[in-house]
Amino acid sequence: MVASSLGNYKVFNRIVDWITNDRLQLLNITERINEIVRKSGIGDGLVHLQSLHTTSAVFLNEWQDALLDDVKGFLEQMVERDRYYRHNDPEHSDCERKNADSHLRGMLMGQTLCLQVRNASVLLGTWQSIIFAEFDGPRSRSLAVQVSGI
Amino acid sequence: MVASSLGNYKVFNRIVDWITNDRLQLLNITERINEIVRKSGIGDGLVHLQSLHTTSAVFLNEWQDALLDDVKGFLEQMVERDRYYRHNDPEHSDCERKNADSHLRGMLMGQTLCLQVRNASVLLGTWQSIIFAEFDGPRSRSLAVQVSGI
Amino acid sequence: MVASSLGNYKVFNRIVDWITNDRLQLLNITERINEIVRKSGIGDGLVHLQSLHTTSAVFLNEWQDALLDDVKGFLEQMVERDRYYRHNDPEHSDCERKNADSHLRGMLMGQTLCLQVRNASVLLGTWQSIIFAEFDGPRSRSLAVQVSGI
Repeated sequence: MVASSLGNYKVFNRIVDWITNDRLQLLNITERINEIVRKSGIGDGLVHLQSLHTTSAVFLNEWQDALLDDVKGFLEQMVERDRYYRHNDPEHSDCERKNADSHLRGMLMGQTLCLQVRNASVLLGTWQSIIFAEFDGPRSRSLAVQVSGI
Repeated sequence: MVASSLGNYKVFNRIVDWITNDRLQLLNITERINEIVRKSGIGDGLVHLQSLHTTSAVFLNEWQDALLDDVKGFLEQMVERDRYYRHNDPEHSDCERKNADSHLRGMLMGQTLCLQVRNASVLLGTWQSIIFAEFDGPRSRSLAVQVSGI
Repeated sequence: MVASSLGNYKVFNRIVDWITNDRLQLLNITERINEIVRKSGIGDGLVHLQSLHTTSAVFLNEWQDALLDDVKGFLEQMVERDRYYRHNDPEHSDCERKNADSHLRGMLMGQTLCLQVRNASVLLGTWQSIIFAEFDGPRSRSLAVQVSGI
């Protein structure tokens, strides 16, 4: 697989929205991203995803029910919800959502993901799906998608 | 929010420096990055941040005192400083700084961050700040900033 | 260090392959990536790396034997192999590799890495090496490399 091009650079911006149902929820957004890439008309370049919320994340993994349960269990164990956090303590913070764990999970997993565009679609390995993780739902969420290239 | 452009691509490179004061320190660099984006004259594209040091990181989170304390506590608990590391053992390493924990924290959080540029400024959600994390200060640190787009 | 350019944008795509030898293995791929950047003829821009496998990762760290042992120990402790995972349970999953830990390690460390290209080479700090991490070897692996810029 080899490609090399020279031409006019283009930027294609979108914001996509959805409503989540659970406090900790994983969404497969692969098809939605691929649709935007196709609409952009860009054949080679990058697609950049940026969740606009600190208590969420975007990352790659296999989309398999059993594994998704393991992912949730892992995040709940790595960043425990029910321990003392200053962010959840009314003496130190005016945050009413008690969501310090959501912030730490979002920080650990990252709110941005950049992937390659090749042949006018998102480059992904056989088992790679693009996953949006809600860590403080249910809520309305926005993801900024930017396709850039030629 | 929709944008789509076609035009001349531009790359704008800068290195910014600062001196940190503590071993584990968090700096809010949002305004500094936005200044560089404005100077670049680029309206749509990407801004890429790369800390040039393995014992540091760049990531997004809310800039709130109580939460920042939780972030430090979380990193100190996830990657303990005072346990055995071969990197800190004179028999296996000539590293005098005993900073294996700093390396692991930098690796876990990541030294790069890529964000979208829209309307000539960094795209960030309401609660998202760009945070530089020092894991082995006090030291002089450099961050490479590249704005690319049109 | 200041640079600013205006010109013709170019995308240069490659897939590189290798075979890993161990279940958990770290490879220094810095020189291989720099070779591709040099071949691309691009002076300023981004080089994007994307491992096409969920049970692997790409990240930066110092390439030092003692530290690499610490990195492996840290990942083995953070994501334990020998605990119950639904993904490894024949009742819930048809995965024969029993590699839930490999998936979680890959997710935690990330399968993508974007770095700046300046002066026709990858921008890296003195102690930064590009590391490919195998979490489910031995296997044949593919890394997608895209250099874009001018």
